[in-house]
Amino acid sequence: MAQVRNKQVVLRKYVDGFPKESDMNIVESTTTLKLPEGSSDVLLKNLYLSCDPYMRILMTNDNITGFGAYTLGSPLIGNGVAQVLESGDQDYKKGDLVWGTTKWEEYSLVPSSQIRSKIEHADIPLSYYTGILGMPGMTAYVGFFELGSPKKGENVFVSAASGAVGQLVGQFAKLTGCYVVGSAGSKEKVDLLKNKLGFDEAFNYKEEPDLNATLKRCFPEGIDIYFENVGGKTLDAVLLNMRVHGRIPVCGMVSQYNLTQPEGVTNLANLIFKRVRMEGFIVGDFYHLYPKYLEFVLPHITEGKVVYVEDIAEGLENGPAAMVGLFSGRNVGKQVLLVAHE
Amino acid sequence: MAQVRNKQVVLRKYVDGFPKESDMNIVESTTTLKLPEGSSDVLLKNLYLSCDPYMRILMTNDNITGFGAYTLGSPLIGNGVAQVLESGDQDYKKGDLVWGTTKWEEYSLVPSSQIRSKIEHADIPLSYYTGILGMPGMTAYVGFFELGSPKKGENVFVSAASGAVGQLVGQFAKLTGCYVVGSAGSKEKVDLLKNKLGFDEAFNYKEEPDLNATLKRCFPEGIDIYFENVGGKTLDAVLLNMRVHGRIPVCGMVSQYNLTQPEGVTNLANLIFKRVRMEGFIVGDFYHLYPKYLEFVLPHITEGKVVYVEDIAEGLENGPAAMVGLFSGRNVGKQVLLVAHE
Ligand SMILES: NC(=O)c1ccc[n+]([C@@H]2O[C@H](COP(=O)([O-])OP(=O)(O)OC[C@H]3O[C@@H](n4cnc5c(N)ncnc54)[C@H](OP(=O)(O)O)[C@@H]3O)[C@@H](O)[C@H]2O)c1
Ligand SMILES: NC(=O)c1ccc[n+]([C@@H]2O[C@H](COP(=O)([O-])OP(=O)(O)OC[C@H]3O[C@@H](n4cnc5c(N)ncnc54)[C@H](OP(=O)(O)O)[C@@H]3O)[C@@H](O)[C@H]2O)c1
Repeated sequence: MAQVRNKQVVLRKYVDGFPKESDMNIVESTTTLKLPEGSSDVLLKNLYLSCDPYMRILMTNDNITGFGAYTLGSPLIGNGVAQVLESGDQDYKKGDLVWGTTKWEEYSLVPSSQIRSKIEHADIPLSYYTGILGMPGMTAYVGFFELGSPKKGENVFVSAASGAVGQLVGQFAKLTGCYVVGSAGSKEKVDLLKNKLGFDEAFNYKEEPDLNATLKRCFPEGIDIYFENVGGKTLDAVLLNMRVHGRIPVCGMVSQYNLTQPEGVTNLANLIFKRVRMEGFIVGDFYHLYPKYLEFVLPHITEGKVVYVEDIAEGLENGPAAMVGLFSGRNVGKQVLLVAHE
Repeated sequence: MAQVRNKQVVLRKYVDGFPKESDMNIVESTTTLKLPEGSSDVLLKNLYLSCDPYMRILMTNDNITGFGAYTLGSPLIGNGVAQVLESGDQDYKKGDLVWGTTKWEEYSLVPSSQIRSKIEHADIPLSYYTGILGMPGMTAYVGFFELGSPKKGENVFVSAASGAVGQLVGQFAKLTGCYVVGSAGSKEKVDLLKNKLGFDEAFNYKEEPDLNATLKRCFPEGIDIYFENVGGKTLDAVLLNMRVHGRIPVCGMVSQYNLTQPEGVTNLANLIFKRVRMEGFIVGDFYHLYPKYLEFVLPHITEGKVVYVEDIAEGLENGPAAMVGLFSGRNVGKQVLLVAHE
């Protein structure tokens, strides 16, 4: 059986502080495109890989999160869109397009249980299954609707608002009849939020010397739902501006993942005064809602009522830069890595 | 109409940092024990006053909480047990014993809407209506059962555990079949928790150099419910020890009320990793459950299955010291101020 090249992005060393491209390596291994005899796994050709902030957490070797860590010298593991080359599980067959957990390489052999879903909607960009139709989409949906319990007319604030998750939270909030403000890290992103993504208001948090004052200006009556993506100073300012019975779905704290000593949040007593519910979640606990989510979101996509901004890097060799870029905000929209065309 | 002396505890100046006795004054005013013509108020003889940590918050003049502030030169306002001397509201009559919001003075004229409940259980110490049968009791009940959603066998941690609220949370948790650990600020209190209040384990947080290690020792499998009374360092250590799907009813943060700059809490990202719900509440939102609470707790009191530790100071002139003592942990159990016998 012929061997083929299998380019990989592997973790070279555990990361301390901000990740650097040099923490990862591009490796050219080889592989045989043949399922081992009797295997129930699937052999995948990876097409699109998803660059996600949580992957930074798996680049640390302390497992404080309980999620484990990447193995040094092995390819990164993450979500992706792939084509089935061979399948030992009768639920999948050669040629199927799928999305789920795969590896940062050209070809992957994975247990079929790692496939999240077959892709049935040929009229929609495949890359969307790393974003709006994949993990980040479900994250926005679950965090906003299940934990946020939004009501029409409520005031919603979203941080990292132009990102993979944030841009959807904002649009879902508008669909619900909420007033929505987003924060992001550049003028370009702020323009995107206001002019393309339908946010009522947006600001560049890097240019606001007093986030409390900014939020007071944007929300004179306070915030009902804060969709938390960043943590740290933003959360602290938000706590001063929550409304009675407000909700804070805690999706992520990307500003803290690279700090050896996370920033201290000082205004938590406002949770009491304002009877606020702050609740962390992991999208993985909610995939039973995926069919319901598709039912909700597909028509909106088709009718152009929900749009999705992607930032597509090409080629595995650009993976490390794409990954690292998440933490300087280089990505505009969902960061995808194109590995191969179908 | 004869005038009588009406001794009062008034706020002399707004408090900055830790409250001092000298922030309050004992004032001897006079009053007429007669309801004004046509008034629908009630005239009360105050018997027991409740010393509560939240009162410190009303001694600051910034109203950041939305709860307002005390008026300088006027008596403190708080919960208490009183006897009706005269009533303009037909629901109450002379001689009735009641509890609700009253003032730190011998006699108070208050709107009848401030009465929370008539006292019907003559076989129970009257002072209990400032504690187990009053606001702190309801607080423990609501926070533990409504927000904590405890299940048999779960691991519960309570801070300020020997206090008015904490001692009940611990006992309610034991009644539910939970494993319960409490923290408190002296050896005497730790003994009380273990030997009288039925906690499985207890520690003096002032003597533990590494709260994270202490909690790991007490909860090798993690904490399901943390009943939050103190905030700050304790909360930060707890966040490292929560179990998946844990709950943190946020009742109070007494360690922070006197700090101009509250301590920073750095481990909030664990809310995500462990999918923890942290929820602030104010007992005042839950008084519709008071009859249900009485139904639950009265038999336990009568049968001696729930006990209640009180610390009773005598005389309004000892009010400022009792109040201030809450913040050095001088009180052992519920701090009550006896104003007059029935
Ligand atoms: N709980 C879950 O199951 C789950 C699932 C998916 C994602 N998440 C979390 O959701 C959040 C957003 O993820 P995403 O996939 O949508 O990523 P993303 O927003 O597309 O990319 C990350 C963005 O975070 C912002 N950022 C980076 N460093 C920051 C800092 N120090 N302060 C403020 N913002 C910073 C940058 O945007 P700016 O230019 O605007 O700074 C960057 O573009 C992350 O915290 C992620 O961990 C959680
Ligand atoms: N949300 C609500 O509706 C509601 C209602 C009632 C009470 N609460 C809150 O519940 C908590 C307990 O109230 P309580 O009435 O039961 O008071 P308490 O526990 O009877 O008295 C206060 C106790 O707090 C402890 N304390 C004081 N300073 C501290 C510090 N720096 N660090 C740690 N502990 C400290 C002291 O005990 P140690 O000797 O153990 O340090 C002190 O005895 C308070 O935070 C209060 O504000 C909230």
